[in-house]
Amino acid sequence: MSYRDASLSVSDRVRDLLGRMTLIEKAGQVNQRLYGWKAWQRVGDGFAATPYLVDEARRFGGIGAVYGLQRADAWSGQTLATGVGAAEGAALSAEIQRTIVAESRLGIPALFVEEVPHGHQAIDGTILPVALAAASTWDPDLYERACAAVAAEVRARGAHVALVSTLDVLRDPRWGRAEETFGEDPQVAALFTTAVVRGMQGHAVDGTIPADRLAVVLKHAAGQGATIGGRNWAATELGWRELAEIHLPPVRAAAEAGAAGIMAAYSEVDGRPAAANRRLLTGVIRDALGFQGLIMADGTALDRLLRLTGDPVSAAALALHSGIDMSLWDEVFPHLDTAVSRGLATMDDLDAAVTRVLTLKFRLGLFDDPILTDISETSGNSGKEEGRSQRRRQAAPEPGLTGRLSAEIAARAVTLLHDREGLLPLRGSRIAVLGPHADTIRHALGDYTAPQRPGVGVTITDALRASGRTVTVAPGADIATGDTTGVDRAVALAEDADVVVLCLGGSSARDVETSFDVNGAALTSTDGPPVQMTAGEGVDLARLRFGDGQYELLRRVAATGTPIVAVVVQGRPHVLGEVLETAGACVNLFYPGPSLGTVVADALLGRREMIGRLPVSLPRDAASLPVYYNHRDHDWNGYVDAGPGPLLPFGGGGPGVLTLGVASFDRGLCRVPVSNPTDRDASAVVQLYLRRVTTTVWPRARELRGFRWVRVPAGQTVVVEMPAGPEQAATVDDCGRPVPETGTVEFSVQMSAAAS
Amino acid sequence: MSYRDASLSVSDRVRDLLGRMTLIEKAGQVNQRLYGWKAWQRVGDGFAATPYLVDEARRFGGIGAVYGLQRADAWSGQTLATGVGAAEGAALSAEIQRTIVAESRLGIPALFVEEVPHGHQAIDGTILPVALAAASTWDPDLYERACAAVAAEVRARGAHVALVSTLDVLRDPRWGRAEETFGEDPQVAALFTTAVVRGMQGHAVDGTIPADRLAVVLKHAAGQGATIGGRNWAATELGWRELAEIHLPPVRAAAEAGAAGIMAAYSEVDGRPAAANRRLLTGVIRDALGFQGLIMADGTALDRLLRLTGDPVSAAALALHSGIDMSLWDEVFPHLDTAVSRGLATMDDLDAAVTRVLTLKFRLGLFDDPILTDISETSGNSGKEEGRSQRRRQAAPEPGLTGRLSAEIAARAVTLLHDREGLLPLRGSRIAVLGPHADTIRHALGDYTAPQRPGVGVTITDALRASGRTVTVAPGADIATGDTTGVDRAVALAEDADVVVLCLGGSSARDVETSFDVNGAALTSTDGPPVQMTAGEGVDLARLRFGDGQYELLRRVAATGTPIVAVVVQGRPHVLGEVLETAGACVNLFYPGPSLGTVVADALLGRREMIGRLPVSLPRDAASLPVYYNHRDHDWNGYVDAGPGPLLPFGGGGPGVLTLGVASFDRGLCRVPVSNPTDRDASAVVQLYLRRVTTTVWPRARELRGFRWVRVPAGQTVVVEMPAGPEQAATVDDCGRPVPETGTVEFSVQMSAAAS
Repeated sequence: MSYRDASLSVSDRVRDLLGRMTLIEKAGQVNQRLYGWKAWQRVGDGFAATPYLVDEARRFGGIGAVYGLQRADAWSGQTLATGVGAAEGAALSAEIQRTIVAESRLGIPALFVEEVPHGHQAIDGTILPVALAAASTWDPDLYERACAAVAAEVRARGAHVALVSTLDVLRDPRWGRAEETFGEDPQVAALFTTAVVRGMQGHAVDGTIPADRLAVVLKHAAGQGATIGGRNWAATELGWRELAEIHLPPVRAAAEAGAAGIMAAYSEVDGRPAAANRRLLTGVIRDALGFQGLIMADGTALDRLLRLTGDPVSAAALALHSGIDMSLWDEVFPHLDTAVSRGLATMDDLDAAVTRVLTLKFRLGLFDDPILTDISETSGNSGKEEGRSQRRRQAAPEPGLTGRLSAEIAARAVTLLHDREGLLPLRGSRIAVLGPHADTIRHALGDYTAPQRPGVGVTITDALRASGRTVTVAPGADIATGDTTGVDRAVALAEDADVVVLCLGGSSARDVETSFDVNGAALTSTDGPPVQMTAGEGVDLARLRFGDGQYELLRRVAATGTPIVAVVVQGRPHVLGEVLETAGACVNLFYPGPSLGTVVADALLGRREMIGRLPVSLPRDAASLPVYYNHRDHDWNGYVDAGPGPLLPFGGGGPGVLTLGVASFDRGLCRVPVSNPTDRDASAVVQLYLRRVTTTVWPRARELRGFRWVRVPAGQTVVVEMPAGPEQAATVDDCGRPVPETGTVEFSVQMSAAAS
Repeated sequence: MSYRDASLSVSDRVRDLLGRMTLIEKAGQVNQRLYGWKAWQRVGDGFAATPYLVDEARRFGGIGAVYGLQRADAWSGQTLATGVGAAEGAALSAEIQRTIVAESRLGIPALFVEEVPHGHQAIDGTILPVALAAASTWDPDLYERACAAVAAEVRARGAHVALVSTLDVLRDPRWGRAEETFGEDPQVAALFTTAVVRGMQGHAVDGTIPADRLAVVLKHAAGQGATIGGRNWAATELGWRELAEIHLPPVRAAAEAGAAGIMAAYSEVDGRPAAANRRLLTGVIRDALGFQGLIMADGTALDRLLRLTGDPVSAAALALHSGIDMSLWDEVFPHLDTAVSRGLATMDDLDAAVTRVLTLKFRLGLFDDPILTDISETSGNSGKEEGRSQRRRQAAPEPGLTGRLSAEIAARAVTLLHDREGLLPLRGSRIAVLGPHADTIRHALGDYTAPQRPGVGVTITDALRASGRTVTVAPGADIATGDTTGVDRAVALAEDADVVVLCLGGSSARDVETSFDVNGAALTSTDGPPVQMTAGEGVDLARLRFGDGQYELLRRVAATGTPIVAVVVQGRPHVLGEVLETAGACVNLFYPGPSLGTVVADALLGRREMIGRLPVSLPRDAASLPVYYNHRDHDWNGYVDAGPGPLLPFGGGGPGVLTLGVASFDRGLCRVPVSNPTDRDASAVVQLYLRRVTTTVWPRARELRGFRWVRVPAGQTVVVEMPAGPEQAATVDDCGRPVPETGTVEFSVQMSAAAS
């Protein structure tokens, strides 16, 4: 069979295979209906497929993809006791693959798809800081290395495809998924998107994905970071121009980097939901931006198309015609065979979708995988099982590498908001570590994380204790409620301390009390019991405030007179005015992951310079949203009751000891001297902004067009160079394609988006 | 000269005249650069043109239009002492017209354009309730009659064109111009737009505007009610679909009713400012919606195009090509002759614009006006002056008619929010009338109003006193600050009263301390002295709260235990939660104008039923905006800290004593019985809502498709009929044109937009 011939090109093999397939087999290949954790059961020391999976494979003569075989979290119900650990993943994957291949007349393997938003959401998956933290480093190269390490971990467990949020640009911080974004700037999001694709998939130009890497499906195209009111799943008012300028740059980056897949957003553009928006998926993303990969629907998103069509067969046809290649959990795409039979969908459209799915499988080497061959030939042979494990271990990544890179990102993301009272590095021997983040990593991990094994991570308390100081600890308040029963104890500790490290913030931690929507988003209700979440998918927050108890704790501790260093650990920009005003110093961390304590202690004790910068503008108040810096440039003087600017600007943070000299611009290059007048080495993120003086579309106040992280030795000056030519001046057409700017532009070099 | 021949058609006359004009004369006809109050001076008992006007007329050989000859307000600086009263308006207009005609080689008169958003913004102009109050009546027919009366008043003063806000649909209540809208619903806005056009212009099908009516230029097309953050002048994210469904229905109504003009908005659609948006102005408004009138730029809006073009000549060409026919105050359109000379703009485009301007002048009868002829022949002849005054008096409207209609609208707009404690009609003989609205009409007039003569209007205190009750009064707090120095005095009065009428709210009143932007919008700043405004153009309000002093007054008065009837007088939906919770009854008035006291007393004393209904959803909190009912229909359960719905729904209010029976739908007609189980006659607004079950664009939760105001006698049942057929089920295309709904729809009859 020529599709088995590895010497042929992928396209030839796909064409051959497609020609052999029946309609139902084709429908099966674009199907990803199952919840992976229901697809297997433990049998003795091994695994077996459940009837849930076998029936599906038989119905379609194969399965396109299986989602989340190894997912572990409160929603899937997989725990440390029941879930699949790193040592078992490969065996589980092999067993399920064997079953699916056996049920496929043509021996077509399935894609195993896992959530890998910031590390693998599975038992033993190493957690990276959330995307918003990664963006705070302004170092996409570091993030690329971390993504490569994560990919090796996950692939070694037998999965092939990572779902990763990189495309959402955060325009409203009320949105619960703020942490899954790289912030409010399209260029930052684009650069980090490129880093994710290259890190996860590797750099192969022919689309081949090496055996230690993963294919990525990037979430979500497009505009979901701009839903009305920051509401999850909800509407947008987005027109094509706003989409092109703000939301398509990361999509274009994904296309140019060769991302294997893109996930269509729940939200709509110009009145049509992404999954039914042919102009978006086909006209813009495929035709204009040249995206070659597959487009996956979001979880149950196709079921929502029944709100348009009324019946699943029509919905399947609508989605396919719009550009969807693969389903997720919905009961719609399984009707594609009927849609084609009835003439509602064309075989050409279905073939195109199947071709994209099969192409990815060939590029991942699934048809040529010797391990798969081993399994299908040797099921149940324990000697062969050992052989397989041996090979998997060889493919496994360098032990601990992911964790080290995770910690490095977390450390570089720590952002000093101010040290008004000169409290840092910490002095004094008695430290009271207070607040809900004081002695746990639980609330610092972010959404889409699995249960952690005991001993994973270092709390702030642990890390400060390890420095030899006398550390007392009390939470004082919880994350989200007004409970103040712990405040007295915390205040007593504050009174006895030289300094208070007040660890405030939010949480995206799900627990057994969390109820879930059909797609795993948290279900929130003001009627239910108090929920210890202020962020995460489904946890949209109107007022952008922590629980009232934390403010009471802040006030009461401040009243003791003991100096306060506030450490804010959050998944979205909360309103921080009172915290910044009350604390003598304030440090921000977007969820850093398990190394929370280490990086906080290193920062507070002066072991590491705090070099993070804000990838979002911090709002003064939820009532004056939005506050993103790159709004269109209109004269506007502010609300009568609130000024026009943010509390702290995009790009801001850091001690700010470096000074910028006069920038020169010559032959497309910007050169700017950065001086360090202090006696300690210091770092900064030098930012290049564009202002369009004359142009064809209403211009924005500023647009970030480049940045350089720079370290300047004590007393010295370093000249930073950044491209600042026609490519940086280019604008985009209404499809997001770059077009030369025909007007006049000004470049400026700044340390933040705030007008200098 | 054939253009002088009144027996020819308007189009023939325009063609003839156009053929005689020079380039500079054509440029002059699309020019409305002057501030009218600077165009005249008093000379003896009469008026004379200033050099400012004469120079302009000479430069262009005529003037297209003069804005605001009679405008009086803090910005124009015209006061009761200096401004032009009703008795003088015609003489002023005649004198200025004589000058302009004399400077025009072809004797072309100018359009005199006045602000008439809710009555003429001039000394003696009778004030109507603001648009948001008019919409609260749900009675466009009444509003049409009032507009006709206003038009007669204004035309009698020699003006020809009224600028009236009708097109903005309020999507964000933070916007300072909320009061200028008919609320959040496109259908309500469309029906009231039609009422304004028919009332102001008359119903003539040939476009002729009678001598007792005005041409209207409707503000603003399109989408300005949806600016980001409710910020004046600011950006929108609007795509064409959102524009078509929400913002174009009133524009379509304007086109269908034959509005003489439409003003292009400051804001942009899909990245292009309205004044430079050819797709919007020409493609959609003219070509798709069939609008035949002229399109005027907003004040200095064309100057803002320099932000795109960098130079005024290019900006003039861009605006003309996009579809702008007439300027306002800008220094851009005066360069149109240069633009044509240089080939940047075409003579055809300029001719089209001039044709529209001249057509309106012919339709208004300006070329045939015998009074004008009188003036030009008899300047300075006092005997003829008397004759002219005589004719003007004959054309004048019925004395007092506008005022009576204004009061009727105000009365019908009064909306009961609740009477939880059964406090209404007011009992007890001792009433303490407290709050900043207690004894003044100043804050109840709205923006765009002129200084009022002494004795105009009735305050709440005056009207309640006139009922024979013992009334004490104290403001207790001011509108916008936290000053609490008056609270003690108010509390003392509350303690001695049987009931408190607590008159809280906002204000759009400008005063001499107000500073103004280039277009007359108020300039707000958090740095300046306290401003007694919470609404009005330029006064965007983030938190939607009254001044803190009013809340302190509310709490302190409530602590006395004296029952509180809250009367809220506002220009935008503020956050009313605390007021509603604290007061035993609460009544809402959007700025009612001078009859404030009368309508409040009539309502509170039970002389009139409160039959107003809310044309906007009232928000719980500024942090959970937006709250409009007709959002797209997504599953969303609310913020973790705020429920998903409004505080009070669109369409709500009233005592709610009537009950709806089961609606029947047959042959395009909905019939629903409305029963009154009480022993008093009662009224309601019966509302027909549409829900699209299957459709092609993401459907909205509900769409209002009709309403009927109904009065049901005590103990009886009335059957209300409303059309509910294909026309009501129609959707729109992306240009706002109606297209048949090919899917399935559900109609429902409700008393508000809240799910029944």
